[in-house]
Amino acid sequence: MNTQPIGVFDSGVGGLSVLRHLVHFMPQEEYVYLGDTARVPYGNKSPETVVQYSLQCARFLELHNVKHIIIACNTASAVALREVRSASSVPVTGVIEPSVQAAIAQTRNGRIGVLGTRATVGSNAYTKHIEQHADGRRIEVIGQPCPLFVPLAEEGWVAHPATRAIAEEYMKPLVMADADTVILGCTHYPLLRATIQDAIPTATLIDPGEHTALTVQETLRSTDALAPLREIPSTRITYYVTDIPATFPQVAKQFLGFDVPQPRLVSIEQLAG
Amino acid sequence: MNTQPIGVFDSGVGGLSVLRHLVHFMPQEEYVYLGDTARVPYGNKSPETVVQYSLQCARFLELHNVKHIIIACNTASAVALREVRSASSVPVTGVIEPSVQAAIAQTRNGRIGVLGTRATVGSNAYTKHIEQHADGRRIEVIGQPCPLFVPLAEEGWVAHPATRAIAEEYMKPLVMADADTVILGCTHYPLLRATIQDAIPTATLIDPGEHTALTVQETLRSTDALAPLREIPSTRITYYVTDIPATFPQVAKQFLGFDVPQPRLVSIEQLAG
Repeated sequence: MNTQPIGVFDSGVGGLSVLRHLVHFMPQEEYVYLGDTARVPYGNKSPETVVQYSLQCARFLELHNVKHIIIACNTASAVALREVRSASSVPVTGVIEPSVQAAIAQTRNGRIGVLGTRATVGSNAYTKHIEQHADGRRIEVIGQPCPLFVPLAEEGWVAHPATRAIAEEYMKPLVMADADTVILGCTHYPLLRATIQDAIPTATLIDPGEHTALTVQETLRSTDALAPLREIPSTRITYYVTDIPATFPQVAKQFLGFDVPQPRLVSIEQLAG
Repeated sequence: MNTQPIGVFDSGVGGLSVLRHLVHFMPQEEYVYLGDTARVPYGNKSPETVVQYSLQCARFLELHNVKHIIIACNTASAVALREVRSASSVPVTGVIEPSVQAAIAQTRNGRIGVLGTRATVGSNAYTKHIEQHADGRRIEVIGQPCPLFVPLAEEGWVAHPATRAIAEEYMKPLVMADADTVILGCTHYPLLRATIQDAIPTATLIDPGEHTALTVQETLRSTDALAPLREIPSTRITYYVTDIPATFPQVAKQFLGFDVPQPRLVSIEQLAG
């Protein structure tokens, strides 16, 4: 049994969609969430910069005595997982490996679609991981950058006619390729899940947050590091952000599904320090 | 006559749409452009953070011996113009005042639309400036946040059916209010000019970059600070960015209209230093 908190970091508020699943599966745990809102998004930054920021975020969480670090950001998971693992004294889980394993287990025809930001898709991180985990099976990966999904999700245009038209256009190559499994490779995309599903009705959608939470739960269980179950779970979460945008409470609630208290501010100078 | 360079800063590459007009009107000048690409966008950051970053950018330009500073970013112009003016030893021009004066001179029915990010429209900076410059005339301001225009412009979807549908939806309140003059209050929007014009055909669109360039030219002329005209103008521009995204050359060319050399990298630690 281990009552130390679990640390989660993301480039902004999107990672709350991952935290949501963690809390769902492990309500007895304590969490420290760090959103680097002052430097969001990571997707348009160089790999060197993303590695540097990710190391700073992980160090911040380690200073908060976490027992496990989750990189909720797809870009950071794609670009900086190895570096963060090397630098950290606790286990680190990114969102890519768990999604890839779930997608490989799910697909019947071996055609997996990967939706993501231009940076995530361009990094080929999902393709490389799928090849590594395919176990000799022939898997075809169809990557599709969906850069307009983030602003559409943040606007709350989750089922707007323009969103439907854009989703249909983005899904065309996946429908053409007969992808039967599609990874929602960006923390914002689960908000658009229903509209994406409508645009590719026969595919199974994989939400990385869900599978990441299950992987972390299994890791903690197998090392006897889960916190003890309490009778009435009341999850303790501390939120840190590097900047507090005016829209934080509304946007955060969209991702998390419940109200978020005022987050604590940590300056990027403190993070870098 | 003054051959010192003109300094321009922006939260990213969008300000190149302002630089384009400066170069057009004053090709004999030398320019130093600073794009804070590591911290873009400013629009979702708190006013305190935007002021801090803007002061850092302005100081960097002053260290490069500029004779005039132009804040090309609408958010920074809205939030930090006064602070940057107080802190700088050279004249500072934002993009809001020149656009407002042009719009007031242009409108016949006194109804001005202002398109911008949620932050710019929410700041009411345009409305306040319009009231200050209206000279007793009754002007109605219709603010319209267009948060999807930036990603659409960066995607190059300038005349895509989804962009047309979104532009029509955004323009509806302006068409209803019979706005005859519309300010493109974000550096990215001039890229969508034709599609925006189609959605509100009878209005005159105001491009802040154009009017800012004219204002700066007049300020330099009236203080005898223009560089001497050379027979064959070959504009010298030095580009600094705080991060180099892989898409920089393509995106920069879209805004500037001509090829951009590899920019020089300045770290945000140096800026903050």
